[in-house]
Amino acid sequence: DKDLYETNDTAGVVTGLAWTPVGGDILFIESILNRGKGGVTLSGQLGDVMKESAMAALSYLRAHADEYGIDYRIFDYYNLHIHVPAGAVPKDGPSAGITMTTSIASALTQRKVKPNLAMTGEVTLRGKVLPVGGIKEKILAAKRAGIQEIILCHKNRKDIEEITPSYISDLTFHYVDMVDEVLKIALMEEKVSKPINFIFPEDKREVILN
Amino acid sequence: DKDLYETNDTAGVVTGLAWTPVGGDILFIESILNRGKGGVTLSGQLGDVMKESAMAALSYLRAHADEYGIDYRIFDYYNLHIHVPAGAVPKDGPSAGITMTTSIASALTQRKVKPNLAMTGEVTLRGKVLPVGGIKEKILAAKRAGIQEIILCHKNRKDIEEITPSYISDLTFHYVDMVDEVLKIALMEEKVSKPINFIFPEDKREVILN
Amino acid sequence: DKDLYETNDTAGVVTGLAWTPVGGDILFIESILNRGKGGVTLSGQLGDVMKESAMAALSYLRAHADEYGIDYRIFDYYNLHIHVPAGAVPKDGPSAGITMTTSIASALTQRKVKPNLAMTGEVTLRGKVLPVGGIKEKILAAKRAGIQEIILCHKNRKDIEEITPSYISDLTFHYVDMVDEVLKIALMEEKVSKPINFIFPEDKREVILN
Amino acid sequence: DKDLYETNDTAGVVTGLAWTPVGGDILFIESILNRGKGGVTLSGQLGDVMKESAMAALSYLRAHADEYGIDYRIFDYYNLHIHVPAGAVPKDGPSAGITMTTSIASALTQRKVKPNLAMTGEVTLRGKVLPVGGIKEKILAAKRAGIQEIILCHKNRKDIEEITPSYISDLTFHYVDMVDEVLKIALMEEKVSKPINFIFPEDKREVILN
Amino acid sequence: DKDLYETNDTAGVVTGLAWTPVGGDILFIESILNRGKGGVTLSGQLGDVMKESAMAALSYLRAHADEYGIDYRIFDYYNLHIHVPAGAVPKDGPSAGITMTTSIASALTQRKVKPNLAMTGEVTLRGKVLPVGGIKEKILAAKRAGIQEIILCHKNRKDIEEITPSYISDLTFHYVDMVDEVLKIALMEEKVSKPINFIFPEDKREVILN
Amino acid sequence: DKDLYETNDTAGVVTGLAWTPVGGDILFIESILNRGKGGVTLSGQLGDVMKESAMAALSYLRAHADEYGIDYRIFDYYNLHIHVPAGAVPKDGPSAGITMTTSIASALTQRKVKPNLAMTGEVTLRGKVLPVGGIKEKILAAKRAGIQEIILCHKNRKDIEEITPSYISDLTFHYVDMVDEVLKIALMEEKVSKPINFIFPEDKREVILN
Ligand SMILES: [Ca+2]
Ligand SMILES: [Ca+2]
Ligand SMILES: [Ca+2]
Ligand SMILES: [Ca+2]
Ligand SMILES: [Ca+2]
Ligand SMILES: [Ca+2]
Ligand SMILES: [Ca+2]
Ligand SMILES: [Ca+2]
Ligand SMILES: [Ca+2]
Ligand SMILES: [Ca+2]
Ligand SMILES: [Ca+2]
Ligand SMILES: [Ca+2]
Repeated sequence: DKDLYETNDTAGVVTGLAWTPVGGDILFIESILNRGKGGVTLSGQLGDVMKESAMAALSYLRAHADEYGIDYRIFDYYNLHIHVPAGAVPKDGPSAGITMTTSIASALTQRKVKPNLAMTGEVTLRGKVLPVGGIKEKILAAKRAGIQEIILCHKNRKDIEEITPSYISDLTFHYVDMVDEVLKIALMEEKVSKPINFIFPEDKREVILN
Repeated sequence: DKDLYETNDTAGVVTGLAWTPVGGDILFIESILNRGKGGVTLSGQLGDVMKESAMAALSYLRAHADEYGIDYRIFDYYNLHIHVPAGAVPKDGPSAGITMTTSIASALTQRKVKPNLAMTGEVTLRGKVLPVGGIKEKILAAKRAGIQEIILCHKNRKDIEEITPSYISDLTFHYVDMVDEVLKIALMEEKVSKPINFIFPEDKREVILN
Repeated sequence: DKDLYETNDTAGVVTGLAWTPVGGDILFIESILNRGKGGVTLSGQLGDVMKESAMAALSYLRAHADEYGIDYRIFDYYNLHIHVPAGAVPKDGPSAGITMTTSIASALTQRKVKPNLAMTGEVTLRGKVLPVGGIKEKILAAKRAGIQEIILCHKNRKDIEEITPSYISDLTFHYVDMVDEVLKIALMEEKVSKPINFIFPEDKREVILN
Repeated sequence: DKDLYETNDTAGVVTGLAWTPVGGDILFIESILNRGKGGVTLSGQLGDVMKESAMAALSYLRAHADEYGIDYRIFDYYNLHIHVPAGAVPKDGPSAGITMTTSIASALTQRKVKPNLAMTGEVTLRGKVLPVGGIKEKILAAKRAGIQEIILCHKNRKDIEEITPSYISDLTFHYVDMVDEVLKIALMEEKVSKPINFIFPEDKREVILN
Repeated sequence: DKDLYETNDTAGVVTGLAWTPVGGDILFIESILNRGKGGVTLSGQLGDVMKESAMAALSYLRAHADEYGIDYRIFDYYNLHIHVPAGAVPKDGPSAGITMTTSIASALTQRKVKPNLAMTGEVTLRGKVLPVGGIKEKILAAKRAGIQEIILCHKNRKDIEEITPSYISDLTFHYVDMVDEVLKIALMEEKVSKPINFIFPEDKREVILN
Repeated sequence: DKDLYETNDTAGVVTGLAWTPVGGDILFIESILNRGKGGVTLSGQLGDVMKESAMAALSYLRAHADEYGIDYRIFDYYNLHIHVPAGAVPKDGPSAGITMTTSIASALTQRKVKPNLAMTGEVTLRGKVLPVGGIKEKILAAKRAGIQEIILCHKNRKDIEEITPSYISDLTFHYVDMVDEVLKIALMEEKVSKPINFIFPEDKREVILN
């Protein structure tokens, strides 16, 4: 059951590319924030490697919050939930790393994700993008799903060059080395309609008593 | 041992449709709130996928609390318990997603659930409703249990169209794409009799000391 | 090793009916409260289903605390321990649900439990009582143990009607649909001798600073 | 490697009777308190049933603290550690219940334990003492270890009456039904030398601000 | 790969004696304190029995802090980490009990450990030292490693008396019954160079507001 | 898929040497800090021994914070995440101990790591460096990756002396006994560009109320 690209109306929803035993497919990473105490929930039958990948994406963004104009108090006073439908399908592996980073960053900034864009690539804690496998099948799936632009690791360029050029002539490829390049491409300046208006309690820890 | 539809007297009780090895059946999702520290308890021998489904339903409602007139402090000062009888029967899968969302929303708003209504469908974190399996058997069970209206994903319409029309002529079907449509149909304006009068302690974190 | 009914001197001790591979038996549910931080402990080699059953009983009572005159602060400032002797015998299943609810309610209210009473029945989170199995063997065990009154789900009435009437002519049966009926029958107005005098610290969270 | 009775110099050390594949033996339950935040640690390779037994003993004493002159704040501001040497020998079962209750009670009250005393018996949460197995082997071990008095459940009297009277003529037996009888026999009025001088921080929760 | 005795320059490092499938060996117990919230970390692939042994050693010292001039606030405001190199070698058993007690005590007091000293013996929670196995192999390893003094349980004296006297004529043996004797022998009055200068925050819990 | 040395632009990234079934390789340890509550996260499919190794490295640095000019409040108000790419490759063993210590120290001090440097060696809690295996294969991998200097334990010098001298004439070897020697070699005085400007809330615990 293959999915189609959907709109970019909602903050935190990013399209990834997956490689399954029955071929490539697109998948959606959904990140959502709600008022709370900084809890993190992962769901969608994610395996250990994919969970660690999500935690690395989150740590990267926490450490670089200033660069993206993210108020660090969001991490203390909002809960983050990351879900990958469909809920019953087990998923694993590090190749959704840059997709997860973009999904969380979109939720934190409430910025829209570029339309008709998909991506695949592992990310390390310092923000380096690593190449992943199954590129041919993933590109096939992206085309079929209505994707027009794709972000990949520079080291995956050779996999694209093995594909018949005419077949992918209607796709634009972005090759990156670091995840900040991904975010520059994927996050639009424009915010989603009805963005979250983040609210923080008085942080008593910073109050000076006298 | 097949169940029958019951009344909508109690907030948080919603009728779902299940597909078991011995055919379809209805099941009840029961959500209850009590004063506490924001704990969440799931019971009824729920499997991993169904537990994640409940957590996604809860995160969705926390993130959209304002839209449903839900005071966000309920999540901090009330415990939520979700139970799916019968207690000894193992249950799993994502297809109770919209039922769980409606059950929690009814508990949080203390609004009545529309009478003689049942539903089945997966929900994702952004509120998208996904199609589920076993529709024929579920409809059979719903009829037998006294259900009159059923909410399904638009993508499940084709399963209904395969059923002999005369057989289901006394049932009303609602096809939806997003969970906010589900809630619009399922939650009545009217509150249950003796609704909870939510009480919150002074939230000291927001006190300005001077 | 079959047990006999004992006195109702102690708050929180209620007689249940069990169905084991070697026939029916009575069992005691013991609930106790002590000053603390709202912890809950379950012991007696209880299986998953029975533990969930205890948690549902507790959530039901927390949510209906007002109706039973239970100060909600007990749940914050007292620990609850539920034990089912004998300690080395594994126990499971949902059929002690109403017995657990009565046991916890007696501990919370310090009200005596009706003498020579036993009960068996599953309870759901909204307070609905569900029928259970092994009724014949349980009634046999209850008689032998000196029980005079028994509470059952209405749906278990048919199991009683299959027993030779003369055999159970000295037993009184109460059939119920909801757990509030159970508590009305089982909890006496009278408190145990030396009831707990509940003490609460000043709840600083509710103090208004000015 | 069989143990001998030792002195009663230290609070919290009580002699129990164990039944092992190689015959009876005595064992020591050691309870110790230290300043902290109310943590509980169990060690000595205790099995699930024995751990639950320790927790029930502790809950019983917390609930009856007043009767034994135990300041309830000890449970909040002192850690309790219960250890059963030898550290590498796995132990399980409920039969050390009354020994554990006495050990914890001695630590909490700093009262000496009666010299040359041993005991065996399960305890339930309401304080009822239940009979245990292996009585003959345990009595043999107690004699050999220098024990002079033994506490047992009334229901174990029949096991003693099966032993040749001359063989146990130098032993005194105490039969009990409730654990408060055990404590009355086992705990001396006299405190250990250098008893703990319990210290409590100002309990701010009870301070009235004005 | 056999180790040699090293210096006593560092607080918290104590030499123990181990018995492995390939003969005896010395091992080092390393305890370290750092500012924190009272956390305890154990590492070095320690088995369950050895972890419990470390916890008992710690509880003993917390309970006897006054006797050793240890400020009880260290346990609240410093983290304790106990490591047993080599990191990849699994270790278990209770025989490092007195070594662990000495290691933690040296870290807490910053007192030097007597040079060229090794020890082996189980310790119970009340401070009793129990005999251990493999004495012959351990003594062999101690000699080879440059150890000059050894602490053992009195009950292990018979194992030493079975060794050819001339072989161990250059070793001094200390036989003990209680762990306070171990500490008296092992801990020098002198502190290590650059001892920790323990710092405690104002303990607000003890502040009297008025 | 063999890696090449990369730049030393980022604080917390250090090059280690690994020995895998398919030969030696370099690996990167990445440590990152972000504002939080002192949490520690480890990722990269690390085995138990490697996780313990990371915890020992961290405890060592916490205990010696003063010596390295590290403000102890970083451990309370910043989260530490340590990741070892590639995310899907399981890794274990203690031989990354000194690499992890250097990585964490660089993150805590924001000092640059010496360029073209790699290292391998176990570290104990007191800072002792232990020899590791697979030296020949690791050196091969280091050369191929562009490494120019290597830190090893003194006890590994014999492994280097077995390699044909001409083959390693362009490599500089540093042999060490303690991890402070490692840090002296590996950490440059110079900070990374855009170092973290550590921010701490008023530590209320140290406020004197009067
Ligand atoms: Ca799909
Ligand atoms: Ca794994
Ligand atoms: Ca059913
Ligand atoms: Ca699973
Ligand atoms: Ca029985
Ligand atoms: Ca289960
Ligand atoms: Ca023994
Ligand atoms: Ca068990
Ligand atoms: Ca060794
Ligand atoms: Ca074990
Ligand atoms: Ca590699
Ligand atoms: Ca392990």
